[in-house]
Amino acid sequence: MRKLFLPIVFACSLPALTMAQQSDSLMLRRIADEVLTHSPAYENLRTLTKKIGGRLAGSPQMAKAEKWGVEALKVAGADTVYLQECMVPHWVRGAREEARIISRRRDFVPPLQVLALGNSVGSSPAGVTAPVLEVTSFDDLEAKKDHVKGKIVFYNYPFNPTFIKTFHAYGDAVQYRGQGASRAAKYGAVAVIVRSMSHSTDNYPHTGAMTYDSAYPKIPAVAIGLKDAERLSLRVKDDPSAQVFLRTNCRMLPDTIGHNVIAELRGSKYPDQYITVGGHLDSWDVSEGAQDDGAGCVQSIEVLRAFKALGIQPARTLRVVLFANEENGTRGARKYAAEAKARNEKHIFALESDAGGFTPRGFSSTMDADKKAIMISWKPLFEPYGLHDFEEPGGGTDVGQLHQALGTPMAELYPDSQRYFDIHHAPNDVFEGVNKRELELGAFGMAGLIYMVDLNF
Amino acid sequence: MRKLFLPIVFACSLPALTMAQQSDSLMLRRIADEVLTHSPAYENLRTLTKKIGGRLAGSPQMAKAEKWGVEALKVAGADTVYLQECMVPHWVRGAREEARIISRRRDFVPPLQVLALGNSVGSSPAGVTAPVLEVTSFDDLEAKKDHVKGKIVFYNYPFNPTFIKTFHAYGDAVQYRGQGASRAAKYGAVAVIVRSMSHSTDNYPHTGAMTYDSAYPKIPAVAIGLKDAERLSLRVKDDPSAQVFLRTNCRMLPDTIGHNVIAELRGSKYPDQYITVGGHLDSWDVSEGAQDDGAGCVQSIEVLRAFKALGIQPARTLRVVLFANEENGTRGARKYAAEAKARNEKHIFALESDAGGFTPRGFSSTMDADKKAIMISWKPLFEPYGLHDFEEPGGGTDVGQLHQALGTPMAELYPDSQRYFDIHHAPNDVFEGVNKRELELGAFGMAGLIYMVDLNF
Repeated sequence: MRKLFLPIVFACSLPALTMAQQSDSLMLRRIADEVLTHSPAYENLRTLTKKIGGRLAGSPQMAKAEKWGVEALKVAGADTVYLQECMVPHWVRGAREEARIISRRRDFVPPLQVLALGNSVGSSPAGVTAPVLEVTSFDDLEAKKDHVKGKIVFYNYPFNPTFIKTFHAYGDAVQYRGQGASRAAKYGAVAVIVRSMSHSTDNYPHTGAMTYDSAYPKIPAVAIGLKDAERLSLRVKDDPSAQVFLRTNCRMLPDTIGHNVIAELRGSKYPDQYITVGGHLDSWDVSEGAQDDGAGCVQSIEVLRAFKALGIQPARTLRVVLFANEENGTRGARKYAAEAKARNEKHIFALESDAGGFTPRGFSSTMDADKKAIMISWKPLFEPYGLHDFEEPGGGTDVGQLHQALGTPMAELYPDSQRYFDIHHAPNDVFEGVNKRELELGAFGMAGLIYMVDLNF
Repeated sequence: MRKLFLPIVFACSLPALTMAQQSDSLMLRRIADEVLTHSPAYENLRTLTKKIGGRLAGSPQMAKAEKWGVEALKVAGADTVYLQECMVPHWVRGAREEARIISRRRDFVPPLQVLALGNSVGSSPAGVTAPVLEVTSFDDLEAKKDHVKGKIVFYNYPFNPTFIKTFHAYGDAVQYRGQGASRAAKYGAVAVIVRSMSHSTDNYPHTGAMTYDSAYPKIPAVAIGLKDAERLSLRVKDDPSAQVFLRTNCRMLPDTIGHNVIAELRGSKYPDQYITVGGHLDSWDVSEGAQDDGAGCVQSIEVLRAFKALGIQPARTLRVVLFANEENGTRGARKYAAEAKARNEKHIFALESDAGGFTPRGFSSTMDADKKAIMISWKPLFEPYGLHDFEEPGGGTDVGQLHQALGTPMAELYPDSQRYFDIHHAPNDVFEGVNKRELELGAFGMAGLIYMVDLNF
């Protein structure tokens, strides 16, 4: 397309605003201009993803990421930066997993691309070889429970494309990753293969956390990509005698030391009241953790930097928290919440970005009805920037711990979700998938919301 | 992020609707489910972009694309498919352009990546070598007009990052591409180099149409990528004696024959009233034309396919039009409008998709206030699908011709615009940049809007 668009003077497109809102509107415009013109968030993300890469709790990369976080927050202009120690689980993948279909037919069958699920146990060094039982749901598993013993159970539950917000499809499907192994082990399964929680058009397997029910044996568990899931499903229907060989080398080591990275911009009026903004610094080992959640980290740092650059000193103390261990334990967030409770800290609000650095559409949130109504009343201020969805319930995993411990009102940036599950927990969650402006618009949204909360909550 | 989201039953999240809207809401849900589950739009786009590729008016690829369009529309279930002939300009790029900085210093200077602007003349076979005069605007050019003679004028006007809707930044900057050559030729410039209309982080040059003012000599004109623009700017400041060598091999051949590809789904009640939906089939030669505008073509085809698949027979005749020659002449759209006028056709509405296949945010439109108010009243029906912006003025370049000729109410799908100018008219506008779900959500939005218009306009 080549058409000419006439630029529209921005103020004209704002709906009728009150006097106070007009002043807020001008400040939001200043914040947006600052972020869209001068933000180092994208270059910060490049460093985190390309120089450090995947950074699971307990890994040497995570230790490097903590150092990076401290430095980036200092450069952003924090009054103080410190580490908050916590114990974190230490799961390691070991040598790369493998899986293949063994068929009596002599045709060539390419290996299956799999990734062990986080927290799962490895197979024996010799691997597991067993027939495959495909199930499409837990109901289907229960119906077939007499046929599970000695088998590898293959959960082939599709990601529902009719959910418009893809996180709803994730919520619908993720139980098979989380609980599938123990539900199958209960009936004697020897391993599980779980179709990835994705509607991507490629074949990357998507890992993620799982948990064992201690009542049943711990069995190996892997994720499989969508094309391989289709292939496996066809094969076992076509050749019921087909078996799968599966070997994983992962194991859980003793807990080790990790850290939340915390920075503060001291409040001018109520320095002992806190507003938290954060993302999680850890990521899965097999990706660069760009959208999940390098984006949330650099956006949170940008909130502080933009405030400093514009001379905005919040009334409450702004705390940027780069949380440890969101992916397979939430220990960082638990520690942060426990410390806040132990010190009887007063927390006004907590905001998280952990749904990707895509174009922001609004915020999901959980708070009392009065505060929610206040927040929704700000919608006209944010709509010119494309943030229009303020009703969605929710809040982040990490700030959720604070919400649970202290009842703190919480929100999460809600970016456009269409691309997120193409890359979530998969090797293709790389820096190149992040768009500079989308990332920056999200950071603006977060800074704007915190500015408004600090004035009004 | 690994949190669990509880799926929300969709109907619950709809705002209070009238009885008629409830029925509309259910039909929109059916359309969305159909498109998100069964659409071949993404695979259609793969064929168009990967098997045919760039397809400028007059090229053999465009002829192939016409054949592809006829076939795809038949498969989609059209009652009739036909070609509408029109004469189109025939500009050819010739052998690949080249440009380099010639400096007295002996350091190595990598060549500049340039693309001749569409419709521009080639340099002499020996190329042009001249000093460079950098200007940052037309005002700056006027101020320096006495220094233009014999120079290559370099328009280094940056794409303004503070426009939230990036099409406004395009509207602000594109005059340098469109008119820059003649404005500089007026003062004796021998060629122009234009900074690409983009805020991308790469160095691809972005071509696009330009026009000459017949009052001045026609001089060569090229686009340059953003990193090279910065490099050239630094070099000419640092070494005022530096020259640029530039050679382009493009030329305008005599007009040739092209075609609009048109399909109809016959109206049940008013078959002689028309609703048009379309995109343009042509693209720049140097890209696959995936977002611009393969996406709009396959989305338009999908509107017809989804109607057929769901047994929706519109009251008015639905016309899908794959327009010829949007990029450098708009001759297809002019022909379509002229024919409609000559035949005294009654056109109810015309919808275009030519702003990329990204997640839809709403529709820009131009129609009388009553109709616009009706359209805006449908917002609650579309918001659950993420389409929230119904106020934006506008309409597409191609349907704009119909609007001009007959006053037909017009609209254009308004997708998220953050990534569009990373790839617009550039070699990186490829199939891989299109997301299947984003493309489908746009097609749903278009089908939904046409369904509502057919019932209510």
